[in-house]
Amino acid sequence: MDAEIIAVGSELLTPFRQDTNSLYLTSKLNTLGMEVRFKTIVGDDRECLATVFRAALNRSGLVLLTGGLGPTEDDLTREVVAGVLGRPLREVPEIRERIEQRFTRLGRPMPQTNLRQALVPENGVWLANKQGTAPGLWLEHEGKTVILLPGPPRELEAVFEAECLPRLAPLSSAAPIKTRVYKVVGLPESEVDERIAPIYRDYANPTTSLLTVPGTIEVHLRARTATEADADALLTELGDKIELALGEHVFSTRGESLEEVVGLYLAMKRKTLAVAESCTGGLLSGRLTRIPGSSDFFVGGAVCYSDVLKIRLAGVPASLLEAHGAVSAPVAQAMAEGIRAQTQASMGVGVTGIAGPSGGSAEKPVGLVFISLADDHGTQVRQFRFPGDRERVRQWAVTAALEMIRRRIRD
Amino acid sequence: MDAEIIAVGSELLTPFRQDTNSLYLTSKLNTLGMEVRFKTIVGDDRECLATVFRAALNRSGLVLLTGGLGPTEDDLTREVVAGVLGRPLREVPEIRERIEQRFTRLGRPMPQTNLRQALVPENGVWLANKQGTAPGLWLEHEGKTVILLPGPPRELEAVFEAECLPRLAPLSSAAPIKTRVYKVVGLPESEVDERIAPIYRDYANPTTSLLTVPGTIEVHLRARTATEADADALLTELGDKIELALGEHVFSTRGESLEEVVGLYLAMKRKTLAVAESCTGGLLSGRLTRIPGSSDFFVGGAVCYSDVLKIRLAGVPASLLEAHGAVSAPVAQAMAEGIRAQTQASMGVGVTGIAGPSGGSAEKPVGLVFISLADDHGTQVRQFRFPGDRERVRQWAVTAALEMIRRRIRD
Repeated sequence: MDAEIIAVGSELLTPFRQDTNSLYLTSKLNTLGMEVRFKTIVGDDRECLATVFRAALNRSGLVLLTGGLGPTEDDLTREVVAGVLGRPLREVPEIRERIEQRFTRLGRPMPQTNLRQALVPENGVWLANKQGTAPGLWLEHEGKTVILLPGPPRELEAVFEAECLPRLAPLSSAAPIKTRVYKVVGLPESEVDERIAPIYRDYANPTTSLLTVPGTIEVHLRARTATEADADALLTELGDKIELALGEHVFSTRGESLEEVVGLYLAMKRKTLAVAESCTGGLLSGRLTRIPGSSDFFVGGAVCYSDVLKIRLAGVPASLLEAHGAVSAPVAQAMAEGIRAQTQASMGVGVTGIAGPSGGSAEKPVGLVFISLADDHGTQVRQFRFPGDRERVRQWAVTAALEMIRRRIRD
Repeated sequence: MDAEIIAVGSELLTPFRQDTNSLYLTSKLNTLGMEVRFKTIVGDDRECLATVFRAALNRSGLVLLTGGLGPTEDDLTREVVAGVLGRPLREVPEIRERIEQRFTRLGRPMPQTNLRQALVPENGVWLANKQGTAPGLWLEHEGKTVILLPGPPRELEAVFEAECLPRLAPLSSAAPIKTRVYKVVGLPESEVDERIAPIYRDYANPTTSLLTVPGTIEVHLRARTATEADADALLTELGDKIELALGEHVFSTRGESLEEVVGLYLAMKRKTLAVAESCTGGLLSGRLTRIPGSSDFFVGGAVCYSDVLKIRLAGVPASLLEAHGAVSAPVAQAMAEGIRAQTQASMGVGVTGIAGPSGGSAEKPVGLVFISLADDHGTQVRQFRFPGDRERVRQWAVTAALEMIRRRIRD
């Protein structure tokens, strides 16, 4: 059964906001073996919504509408859908009671407009919403299924999970669509594609797509077959070839982030890490501490945004700063060694560079970054030249530092 | 003239990727006074695309299609649009030459499939693409305008900016749609809405919408009138009332982020700042150093993820840690005062808390955060209890710290 999603709301047609509910819904529908064929975004406009809904009902077995179930006059989804299907709206006393109770609990008077949320099209089933006042609605019409869901993601997800998934499962006989993700670091997207396109082009199923996330590239495989086992076999067959072609650049095959992989390695080898950051200004620490339990391997570090702090917190000799400047290989090295000595960590990392937009020169241009790594085996320094604006340079530098740590621990 | 956007690409119907080009296009079309009425996302499927394009052509004066202009067999937009409009495709020698030259420059052989990009529907105008091989296309059909743009954002934006904006401007007689954004901190969304809904409900124009970004709330006003001056007057009229109702919680009316406002204040008053972070793990430094030139007011700080580093880098007395635990008001205060003393900054900030998911207890639950601020006027400590998961607690704590700094400098 093919599905389509209609997101309703004028704010979704401004440059400020995007429909994200459809990503959640697509992922859930895929697990039931259902493909989403169309997504439409339409404003709070009676005629526009009716046009779009009619077209959807014509071409898709399952139509999901999200948003427009609120209490205000702008919220038209319930009414327009009932109109197109030719069904009168009837107040359901049980929904009315629930809404009234909710307001009583919150100690607020209930605006009369909220009672619109108690209206259900004839022969419709209402879907309880534990997170808000707007129930979802389930309608069947000439062999098609229409589902209306509230727009706020928390409410939508609660209603879909509890009330829609169990009702949808028996409607689908297809095997779930299965996916696998390979995460790659240290190669530009064009090279990743050059290496693997000759492989994945031979496969119409699974389909392959590349997704660039700052600093890393994700290779997404998506398989659809008669049985789950067949899909897994196909994913493994293609996936193994792709992994071989990308070699050590693949750092994750199960969704882990680069910092998670680094954290796992560090914890496994019982190593600890400290960092001294200049141009990344705390972002490397911030990425590492995203991981729950990161205090097991990450002791902390210094954000040495000024020369004084490079000297005081990371123990960089003032003479080095004078001789080579703050952005230089010797200073990066002194930062890595200094923070390691200060903190007694098994590994120290130093990052210094020019993130821009100003501060660059012919000799030391914007994007120039030195990253150093010090441990029992010695100290390594690498020089990079990252492209893009300030934020991109900083993100690239964080990823490059994590990748240097990953390689050092692995080897 | 009303516009609609069709984004073409099967990857946009997976849970992994979203159409973002339409946000850019909407913002540009709005400056020409054009509203986007519908957005549709459709896969690389001949029939589905034809259906969607036909419907769009029926109801909108301007139809923009993005994506599906690449060299592979999956790229169908050019062909399908030509088919629906009933126009044969003809090869344009000049485009062919450009594509061939591009490959010569890159020193690579040109796959024959790339020549599909040299095909233009009869009576169509091709739009030069300086960023890639796929030119855009401009077609007029029974008083309607159809624009085809390449999918990669860099290419799309380059073609639109250079080739479409100048051609579209004369087609629109409407005044630009004008917007204004008020950014609010320190109030929950429900309270913001309670305070301002009675005000904005009286205005059908400008329209008002609330957008929650972690820790802050944005109030977006959008006005459409006959002249630009009228729109500005309306925005000011409604905006002033909203600002009055939200008072000191409004930190920005021109799009600045909270860290930019804090940076501006600090630079203006010639103050410097240093931070000692525990649970935020570098994120507060990371936010402050996003601002170009932040080294003028931010000297750096310590990420004290372990007790040892709280003692060594932030000068916290070991006895305090023993007596009160790392997550406590006295330790937050010692971190703020200690990092200030270490760095000689005019202001020191200390953040310590339990971000979770583990580490919480009945007495010190997940979400408990202490933030302290020390300067010449003394030291202040505040206790917070933030909701949500690890990442949300950390983001809330960063925002709360920035807000404490903003208030201290302003007062």
